[in-house]
Amino acid sequence: MKEFEGYKYIEGGVCAAKGFKANGLYCGIKKSPVPDGNESPISNTKNDLCLVASDVMCNAASVFTQNKVKGAPVVVSQKNLAATGGRAQAFILNSKNANTCNADGEEKAYRMCELAAERLGIKREEVLVAQTGVIGQVFPIEPVEEKIDELVAGLGYEKNLEAAIAIMTTDTVKKEVAVEFELDGKLCHLGGMGKGSGMIHPNMATTLNIITTDCAVSAEMIQKALSDVVKITYNCLSVDGDQSTNDTCAVMANGLAGNTEITSEGKDYEVFKQALYIVMMNITRMLAKDGEGATKLLECHVTGAPDLDTAIIIAKSVICSPLVKCAMYGADANCGRIMCAMGYAETDCDVTHADVYYISKAGKILVCGKGLGLQFDEDLAKAILSEDEITIFVDLHEGDAEATAWGCDLTYDYVKINGDYRS
Amino acid sequence: MKEFEGYKYIEGGVCAAKGFKANGLYCGIKKSPVPDGNESPISNTKNDLCLVASDVMCNAASVFTQNKVKGAPVVVSQKNLAATGGRAQAFILNSKNANTCNADGEEKAYRMCELAAERLGIKREEVLVAQTGVIGQVFPIEPVEEKIDELVAGLGYEKNLEAAIAIMTTDTVKKEVAVEFELDGKLCHLGGMGKGSGMIHPNMATTLNIITTDCAVSAEMIQKALSDVVKITYNCLSVDGDQSTNDTCAVMANGLAGNTEITSEGKDYEVFKQALYIVMMNITRMLAKDGEGATKLLECHVTGAPDLDTAIIIAKSVICSPLVKCAMYGADANCGRIMCAMGYAETDCDVTHADVYYISKAGKILVCGKGLGLQFDEDLAKAILSEDEITIFVDLHEGDAEATAWGCDLTYDYVKINGDYRS
Repeated sequence: MKEFEGYKYIEGGVCAAKGFKANGLYCGIKKSPVPDGNESPISNTKNDLCLVASDVMCNAASVFTQNKVKGAPVVVSQKNLAATGGRAQAFILNSKNANTCNADGEEKAYRMCELAAERLGIKREEVLVAQTGVIGQVFPIEPVEEKIDELVAGLGYEKNLEAAIAIMTTDTVKKEVAVEFELDGKLCHLGGMGKGSGMIHPNMATTLNIITTDCAVSAEMIQKALSDVVKITYNCLSVDGDQSTNDTCAVMANGLAGNTEITSEGKDYEVFKQALYIVMMNITRMLAKDGEGATKLLECHVTGAPDLDTAIIIAKSVICSPLVKCAMYGADANCGRIMCAMGYAETDCDVTHADVYYISKAGKILVCGKGLGLQFDEDLAKAILSEDEITIFVDLHEGDAEATAWGCDLTYDYVKINGDYRS
Repeated sequence: MKEFEGYKYIEGGVCAAKGFKANGLYCGIKKSPVPDGNESPISNTKNDLCLVASDVMCNAASVFTQNKVKGAPVVVSQKNLAATGGRAQAFILNSKNANTCNADGEEKAYRMCELAAERLGIKREEVLVAQTGVIGQVFPIEPVEEKIDELVAGLGYEKNLEAAIAIMTTDTVKKEVAVEFELDGKLCHLGGMGKGSGMIHPNMATTLNIITTDCAVSAEMIQKALSDVVKITYNCLSVDGDQSTNDTCAVMANGLAGNTEITSEGKDYEVFKQALYIVMMNITRMLAKDGEGATKLLECHVTGAPDLDTAIIIAKSVICSPLVKCAMYGADANCGRIMCAMGYAETDCDVTHADVYYISKAGKILVCGKGLGLQFDEDLAKAILSEDEITIFVDLHEGDAEATAWGCDLTYDYVKINGDYRS
């Protein structure tokens, strides 16, 4: 992982920050076995329910999916945050069923909050909820009711991994990142976990994510930092062009680090925001690399853009192109695919004079100069594109702004995984 | 093919209309062999160059790609149509090289027109040009120069198939449709050919297409009808979400049927426009069914929309969703994928109360009622989705407008075909 001065990567995920406990377990939300030929690397009795709880009340903010078909947990979490004015003390999540397009969805999402709240001695509104999995199948609340006592009783300051596993669906690896940094003379921690490998697309929070910190920071400033950072991390990630109904990314800050609360922009705010960026950018890379069926992490870095928004739009257009994704899977240094994808990006920027490079550990090669296809060393190009992390580097020669978008290749396995998802 | 009263399907493609000759041949634009494991169903010496020519001058109109990176032939055809004020007598096309992102692209595209014009005894500006294939590789004009005499000498009134084969790239079948109808007491003909199986996306002309007719109709009225029909046919087609740099759809009308020239809207215009719709809609279906690696033709028919544009946007969103495409490939009746894709469609329409049906020759099944997932007969659903032509039928209950979008499933073979396209 890339180093950032003043920040140290640490273990602990959502439990890295002081005063945050977690737990996860298998409660049996989906009992049917995975059929032959569609085996998940995760066992069928893997954790499917988890809880993250702070010892004290937190300031909280969240971003949610922009899909008009919203999961019931999204609606309930939005209402809860509105009711408390940006406060929350716990977050309950499950996989295997998204509780979306169900008549009794909201009722059951509220029941999830209530079950946790009763045992934690807090109000129902102080619990956030997120759910992921199949859409349009009735959510069975009974397994949660049966296991809630065990879930709460087992909360621990080092059980982040139990929680991270519980939110995995088609993910093949758990996604956790945490950093340590100093603020106002106090040692602070910020860590998070995420899930998601398909149905990941820009213009939304993307996937389920929780980030916890012991920084003292107001809900308003969390929201501001989160919105800015989401724009250049999760919103620059695309796996397959679909947008989920249940995406949620929440930040909870309990203030136990003892720094003076951040209530406005300034130096302290920037330090906090950078920590948030480091954690979310690394989770973004993990999500891209674990894209369904993916064999390669793709980064498109666009420089020389007239402004940030243009750089983001063009980088995303390249990363989202199915033909670029297939070409990268096949290690085919087709510069036409890149030029074509930049050409249909929805921006007024002139992309017809761009330089396009492919970069990886194996080297760097210029395949398109000033918009024109070049002769190049095919063997070197093949070697570069055979690595598992590839950067498509573009210089537009139209200004000084730059941005990165992340994605993955499109492979046979993506089709296999999504050909029979409900089973 | 669906029957339309007053129109009869006939053979002949671009030669169905009176006074149109065609020819196609192999000139060797790309000499390198197709490597193992990526065999095309089309032989390596298949036709790669073709010409369509009318005995007399035509009124003509065209729609082109909206990609900012435009192929040189697009630029040249646009300039030629502007120079002649909407007249053309011939159309020269090649596959295997798109002549795009090349320094000498325009010069060579003009040379294509010139080579044909000299031998036909017409002006360079009266020839349209279209090219498709690899981007960013220098276009070899020499094979065209060598074969142009043979190409022109071999023009014939029944050689539409030679031409249709010449524009095929990854297509597995040639695409030709023609109809006969009466106008103003005269027998008229309108026929066309198209190519394309990948890189096909809405908001553009999509693919290379030529349509010829012996109707007498002004360039202005051709343009009007073409723009209207493209909107509800080619622009409602998506194979993979990419937009090509070279898309061109041109209509040439030579007036040899002897009807009074159509110069304004009215009954005759509607008869002509309907003929254009029948031909373009059928080519659209052929393009969808022959999508790269496709095993199934998907139609999404949206009804109950507040207006046509909304119906189109929602139908396209469903057809474009990679997760819907994978689910259809796997015959998985996942209603969540449909609801999700409608939810992120860029419209203000409330999609949360929609009914969703799957329909095919094997039957019809309701999987989502008023926005809620339903229990349904899984065996029947599997049977319905195992057919090779599937309709996803949606009733939004929000108005009276309706539209259809066309696409195909996403399969292992799509990835295979596009993993090493340049070879």
